[in-house]
Formats: sequence, structure tokens, C-alpha cells
Amino acid sequence: MAQIRIGIAGYGNLGRGVEYAIKQSPDMTLEAVFTRRNPADLKINSDAKVVSMNDVAAYAGKIDVMILCGGSATDLPNQGPELAKYFNTIDSFDTHAKIPEYFAKMDSAHKAAGTAGIISVGWDPGLFSVNRMMAGAILPNGSDYTFWGKGVSQGHSDAIRRIKGVKDAKQYTVPIESAIDSVRNGENPELTTRQKHLRDCYVVLEEGADAEYVKNEIVNMPNYFADYDTTVNFISEAELKEKHSAMPHGGFVFRTGKTASGTSHVIEYSLKLESNPDFTSSVLVAYARAIYKMSKTGLTGAFSVFDVAPALLSPKSNEELRATLL
Amino acid sequence: MAQIRIGIAGYGNLGRGVEYAIKQSPDMTLEAVFTRRNPADLKINSDAKVVSMNDVAAYAGKIDVMILCGGSATDLPNQGPELAKYFNTIDSFDTHAKIPEYFAKMDSAHKAAGTAGIISVGWDPGLFSVNRMMAGAILPNGSDYTFWGKGVSQGHSDAIRRIKGVKDAKQYTVPIESAIDSVRNGENPELTTRQKHLRDCYVVLEEGADAEYVKNEIVNMPNYFADYDTTVNFISEAELKEKHSAMPHGGFVFRTGKTASGTSHVIEYSLKLESNPDFTSSVLVAYARAIYKMSKTGLTGAFSVFDVAPALLSPKSNEELRATLL
Repeated sequence: MAQIRIGIAGYGNLGRGVEYAIKQSPDMTLEAVFTRRNPADLKINSDAKVVSMNDVAAYAGKIDVMILCGGSATDLPNQGPELAKYFNTIDSFDTHAKIPEYFAKMDSAHKAAGTAGIISVGWDPGLFSVNRMMAGAILPNGSDYTFWGKGVSQGHSDAIRRIKGVKDAKQYTVPIESAIDSVRNGENPELTTRQKHLRDCYVVLEEGADAEYVKNEIVNMPNYFADYDTTVNFISEAELKEKHSAMPHGGFVFRTGKTASGTSHVIEYSLKLESNPDFTSSVLVAYARAIYKMSKTGLTGAFSVFDVAPALLSPKSNEELRATLL
Repeated sequence: MAQIRIGIAGYGNLGRGVEYAIKQSPDMTLEAVFTRRNPADLKINSDAKVVSMNDVAAYAGKIDVMILCGGSATDLPNQGPELAKYFNTIDSFDTHAKIPEYFAKMDSAHKAAGTAGIISVGWDPGLFSVNRMMAGAILPNGSDYTFWGKGVSQGHSDAIRRIKGVKDAKQYTVPIESAIDSVRNGENPELTTRQKHLRDCYVVLEEGADAEYVKNEIVNMPNYFADYDTTVNFISEAELKEKHSAMPHGGFVFRTGKTASGTSHVIEYSLKLESNPDFTSSVLVAYARAIYKMSKTGLTGAFSVFDVAPALLSPKSNEELRATLL
């Protein structure tokens, strides 16, 4: 089978996940992992080369798709347009408010270089977006509902860790079952922030820290916790490590709508993920296959998941897909 | 807003549903309904023209997309390739085993005429196919499960009506809750036909018919009922009309899979539809928008839902979709 040559830019949880997902993709080869660390110090889980990010330009023409595994806050805004000069790209840019700005930058970088890329790939943004969009096009007269969890929110865990006296913390976002049921039953509820999710925190204190102070800082923190029912559990460092090291996540996207004849319909899409980065990586790799095919047809510039026909995600031929999966 | 001119070929439940769905589509106009009946006898729910199917060729160039609302068994195999000579088409061809053959016929008819069409649009085949396909591309190491219902199966209801002594009947396909839960919990069960669905029948007898005979004919009918747990309820014609006239349907598509790192994931897509034809029609209309846009870019030939990028289904611009739904 002809091989799509993949590069990984950044080797954290997401980069490791991409490396694993490529092992399940017979049409792909991992060419190299690029890192800002000293390549000699990086142990990876495959035979691919480990290369300094400083030498990435030398791989232009040797890699078909570069999968960007850095973070949206500081890595991607600079790294994205820079790598678009040399490679087709896939990234998981997830700062929703800045997507138009990031798209414009990536689009012009890719067009100038004659390369192509898909931004904001993953499950939200990503698969959830595709489902919201398709369901809204099919049932234009209706309502959208998105619930997240149960899962670890990195941003909320980080916010707790910044409080004085906190040694470590994990925060779970938990969707409220009765709210989901009401939506699923087509009741079209109007739900406040507090009625949709609750927040469950597991906190390790520094020695001598004031538990009451920490708890108050958490539950009253604006934006992050103040609008939610929040539970704070103080536990030992050993227990946090033992019971809260995994990174599960998931969620639900609903569209409820009425046709002009007056009948009601519910479309539901949901994910239950044992590991958020592992699953996100699997999505990135499928879309890497798509941008490879799209660039082969001569397309250049930036795209989103909305621009990707489903068949492009699969290693199977259109004939096989129609015969077996339609 | 520029208008996409739609034609409806065949005015049954599906044709009526398409007519309703167009009312919710500000970018579409229903140009005409084509019928094999006497046009003067057909009352429709809009101001569109009603035209004899014999005169359909005169509408070439006046209709952007013809939505074929006939059945897969006898209508579409002939009507599809014939109408493809004059129009871009959308149809809901759903005889799974004959899809490759039908696709080939539509593809050559469309290519010869310079038109384009999407076959097998709806929810299964259609949205369920898209979800099976995408989920399998993302989690290549895993299992697919599809459950249908609770909903009316036209084919099974017809099979009962053919039994001597049966005046009328409705059959509900009911997915078995405990099987769904097992799949949803990631238990990867091996399920027999009997463990996935049960069949619930409501039967009106002809006067003097032998109820025991009818019941035995139903529950032992090969392919249709013999492999299932089947309940037969004899009711009056009035009760059938009052309680079983609606056409609800729906179902569930699951993909459960493991990444190479060993973590497990569940993708679920489900529909709960108050009216099967109304919802199917809404899907047809969204894909009519897509084939209109695809033909405008110069594409000809037959396509499936696998070839359609999500954005093509929406009347919104790519910029708006990215800013609001990504």
C-alpha cells in the first residue's frame, strides 16, 4: 500500500497518541517526531526519527502531512503558520473565539506555500462541530444542546492549581443526567449553566494549607466555578495519583427540531472516551489522510472539518465504502 | 437570496415531506410536483405546479434538482436513470444489496447528460452510513452495532397483510434495551438476531378469520419473524387507525474501539423520529442543496453521502459556519 508520510510536531500526550494511531493505519508511516527538547533526550514508542524543531524545514518534501500536537494558547498561533510554509498540516486549535483569525493566518500561509491544512480537528471542535452543523442543516427549525463529560477539564484543573496552598488538583466536568434526559425526551428545556453541568474537584493541599480558604477560592472563582454547583474533595497525593491519573472525557450533542408538518425529531451524538488525548489523536490521523488526498487533487489553503467529505477519512476505496457501509 | 429550483417526482409520504421541508428552506423554491396520476386530481400543500410525469422532460433547465420520491423496488431503478438525463437528482434508494448496481447505472446516466446526483440519501442508508463510515475510519480496531426502532417497518407490515385472513396490520421493530446498554457500556457483546430486536405486531382480522392460524403464520415466517421474539396483538380496525397510524422510527449506530495504547472508546449516534418520512424528506432536501452546489462546480456523475462535505448541506457561508458552529 502506498504510504502517507506523517510528521509529528510536539511530543506530549497528543503526539504520543498520534504515534499510536499511526500503528493502526496501514497506509501511513511515521517519518519523524519534531521536538523543541534535545532530541537525544526524547524516548518515543516507535522507530521513527527524533529531530530538533530547528531542523524541520529540511523535511519539506519528505513529509506528506505534519500533525501539529502543540497547545492552542501559545504553540499553534506561531507554529501553525510557520509549518504551513513547508507542509500540509492538521491541528487541533480549540480557542473557539479565535478560530476566524487563526483560519485566516493559516489560509494565507498555506496558499502562499501551495500547501493545505485542516484546522481545529478533534472532537470539540471537530466531530461535535460536524454533528451540530449537519443536524442544524437537516432540522433548521430547532435547538442545539451540548453537554461535556464526565471528563477531566485541564483548564479547570490548572485554575485550581494556581490557588495558594494547592499542591495538585483534578477537576471533572459532569453533565447533569436529568437535563440530558429532558433534552433526549424532546422537552426543549431552557437550561441555565448550573442546570447543565456540575463540577467535581479532587484537591491535594500543601502541608499546613488552609482547606477552608482553598475551598472558598474554588467555589467562588468567577467564570470557572461560581456559576456551577461545585464539590471539593481533599485527598492525599497518593490517592490523586492512583485514582485520578486517567484522562477520560466525552459528551453529548443534541439537535431537537420540528418539521413544517409539525412532527418532532431528536438527533443525538455522543462520545464516551477512556482517554481524551488518545481519541483526539485518532481523529487527527483520520483527517491527516483527508488533507493528503485533498492536496493531491491540487487544493491549497486552510480548511475546516466542514469541508471534508467523509470518504476522505477512510483508507478504503469509494467502491468498497458504498458496497459495505452505505 | 438566490433560489434553488426544486422538483418533486412522486407525491406520496416522502413527496409531501419534501414539500414541507422546502417551506423551511429560504434558499429553495418548489417549482413543480410530477405525478403519474392525473395532475388535476392531485391536491398538494403548496402553490407549486402539478405536472404529469409524461411532461417532465420539458422541465429540463427549469429545475435545478429533482428529488425522487418513489420506492426502491419498482420506481427508482427505471425512473432514476431516466430523470438523470435531464436533471440533477437526489434519491433514497435503500435496497442495500443493489446499491453498487444502481450507482453504476446512475453514474453513467448522469455523466452522459452532464448532470449530477446523490443516491441512497436518508437516514439508513444516509446519516447512519456516514456515522458508521466516519467512526470506523477514526477507530479502525473495533466493532459496529446498529439497532433500529422503535419504529414501524413497512416491509414487515406488508408481509403480515399478505397472510390469508388479515385485513390490516402494523409491525413495530423494537430494539432490546439491555443489548443497547451492554454496547453503550463498552462490553462488546456478541449478539444474535433475537438478542438485538423484538417484533411487535398489531393485526386486524377479516371477519371469520382463524386467529391461531394467522398468529402461527406470522411468528414462523422465515426471514421476517422466525428469528425474532414476536408478539401478535389482535385489535379492531378502529383501534389500529386511532393508535397506530403514525410512522415513528429511529435507531442507534455504535462504534466501540480500542486505540493501540489500549484505551477504549464508544461513539454513539441516534435518532428518535416522530415521523420517518418527514425526517427522511428533511435529509433529502439538505442533500439537494449539496448536489446543487456540487454541480455548480462542474461535477457530474453519481455520488453517495460519503462524497458530500458537511458544509455543502447548509445555506450558510463557510465563514459563518466556522465562526458560529466550529
